[in-house]
Amino acid sequence: MPINLPAIEPLYQPVLQAQLQSCLDCKTKPVGSLGKIETLAMQIGLIQQTCTPHFKLPQLLVFAADHGLACEGISAYPSEVTWQMVENFLSGGAAVSVLARQHQLALSVVDAGIDHSFAPRLQLLNHKIAFATVNSLHHPAMTLAQCEQAVQAGGEVVRSLPGNVVLLGEMGIGNSASAALLLARLTHTDIALCTGRGTGLDDAGLARKRAVLVRVLERHRYATEHWDVMACLGGLEIAMLAGAALQAASERRVVVVDGFIAGSALLWAAQLCPAVLDYCVWSHTSAETGHLHLLKILQVQGLLDLGLRLGEASGAALAWPLIESAALLLTEMASFGSAGVAGRS
Amino acid sequence: MPINLPAIEPLYQPVLQAQLQSCLDCKTKPVGSLGKIETLAMQIGLIQQTCTPHFKLPQLLVFAADHGLACEGISAYPSEVTWQMVENFLSGGAAVSVLARQHQLALSVVDAGIDHSFAPRLQLLNHKIAFATVNSLHHPAMTLAQCEQAVQAGGEVVRSLPGNVVLLGEMGIGNSASAALLLARLTHTDIALCTGRGTGLDDAGLARKRAVLVRVLERHRYATEHWDVMACLGGLEIAMLAGAALQAASERRVVVVDGFIAGSALLWAAQLCPAVLDYCVWSHTSAETGHLHLLKILQVQGLLDLGLRLGEASGAALAWPLIESAALLLTEMASFGSAGVAGRS
Repeated sequence: MPINLPAIEPLYQPVLQAQLQSCLDCKTKPVGSLGKIETLAMQIGLIQQTCTPHFKLPQLLVFAADHGLACEGISAYPSEVTWQMVENFLSGGAAVSVLARQHQLALSVVDAGIDHSFAPRLQLLNHKIAFATVNSLHHPAMTLAQCEQAVQAGGEVVRSLPGNVVLLGEMGIGNSASAALLLARLTHTDIALCTGRGTGLDDAGLARKRAVLVRVLERHRYATEHWDVMACLGGLEIAMLAGAALQAASERRVVVVDGFIAGSALLWAAQLCPAVLDYCVWSHTSAETGHLHLLKILQVQGLLDLGLRLGEASGAALAWPLIESAALLLTEMASFGSAGVAGRS
Repeated sequence: MPINLPAIEPLYQPVLQAQLQSCLDCKTKPVGSLGKIETLAMQIGLIQQTCTPHFKLPQLLVFAADHGLACEGISAYPSEVTWQMVENFLSGGAAVSVLARQHQLALSVVDAGIDHSFAPRLQLLNHKIAFATVNSLHHPAMTLAQCEQAVQAGGEVVRSLPGNVVLLGEMGIGNSASAALLLARLTHTDIALCTGRGTGLDDAGLARKRAVLVRVLERHRYATEHWDVMACLGGLEIAMLAGAALQAASERRVVVVDGFIAGSALLWAAQLCPAVLDYCVWSHTSAETGHLHLLKILQVQGLLDLGLRLGEASGAALAWPLIESAALLLTEMASFGSAGVAGRS
């Protein structure tokens, strides 16, 4: 473990769990009738260590970077879309901008390594480590030092922001390829099962992407050590996402994970520190090939299943009100006793 | 058709549909990448006949009534829970109260036939037709006149309220039995496949409920005419829900349908007037046996799939932010042109 990682406390708290279960079961509703919302309420209660949880200043973070591998024609869009979309996030026109406004989520975009020089802006956090990763078909995407720096920077981003919940997403043309590579290497899964159409490749494009990724894995066949895997195959925004999640969990913040690429960061982080998963809410099951497999490996389920495949933390933002509902229901619902409602016959 | 039903215009508008599709495809995102949210945006655009839809004064309606059949031991809870929960809705402690507050939904409870006399309250709309239905094991649950009156009253409730969207739910101990009976009779489905645990019957309770429902269907074996089916097997709140949905669709309001019982009202309404379905958003697939079958028959899918089985319009309220998101994304997202983002390579 090259760098010091924050300590994360596992959520094993049987006394509190029993209290929370009793609290949920006394609410004026049939036991268990709010389904997964109750599971979520339990998790939030355990994270916040209270039967009356509430969220403060939710932070939506979009980590963005470019990918050297993108020049191999693995994406339907050119790399300049990364910085152009960041401008779109900041000017309020992107999907995630609309959703952040709708739900009063504080939106920050983190430049982890975008191939563009931005004018400073309030919502743009500059943690640029390079102008892109290197083409992993020929070299490691990052040096080990860059990879460590990215994980640390992700932690710093979270430490610098207030609140008790983060929603984590990303932007980076070519990054579904990195996520597929990480999933394949970290879980020993056939790359074909990990590789999807990303932003919308056609059949020929998908075949090309798969063929390129097979060659990338072969080029880095000896990269099996955990940090080497991220350095050789990952992305600056993915490493930074992992660091952000680890830091957020260590501060007992709820971590709302977006789709496939954010998921790949958590898969990597969880192999370093499994307790991080206790703090994660999986916002949705995306349409991107590989995401369902990733969720199954982690033995988790997405809250939403709407065929989303946009990234940007848009799925996390769409799921956010459900997470807020879970906390509000636990905190605000009346009990059978307090409301004077009869119990079971 | 005993009463005059409002005319509902089907949503066949090919020119507008093409405009909406073009508008969605020009937004700064890969085509189709917002999945079912885009389908929803299309539907809302067609209903509101604009590429910039927005919702005004959303109305959440909980239709409540008691069921004579409840005395046969078909529910885990006694009938007095109906009025007690209505008090809980009004005093703000129920799940739907919490969710309505969270999303600024105007909550009204409609007394369609509750076995209780309420003091007048601002949010309580009195359309009481009886103090409960009659026990359908021995008699029709309603007279035909009561059934018609209930459908009409549902329409009046909607007409009296402002806004361009209604969220429809219910409360009534025993009403999952009525919904099961309606589903079985209207779709020629084995009652066993339509009957679930409701608020939480155990195995013995479920077997008893099924046995009772078999006898109810046998008692009313000649009730096959559409209005007779509702009168013999339905409930006052279910008939009123059907009337509310028909009226709302006739006014081009979006109709957000809660779970199994609200769904059974729509199933009945759709057999009278299929165009009502064009205006419906199916908020969730509930855990109640029969609901998935009902949705499949109608060839629709729930937005959420969280194992909910509470009723009260709680699933509709939980899904509401997604519906609002669909409208906001269509209205507020930038296009590739306006945001200066490059298109596909």
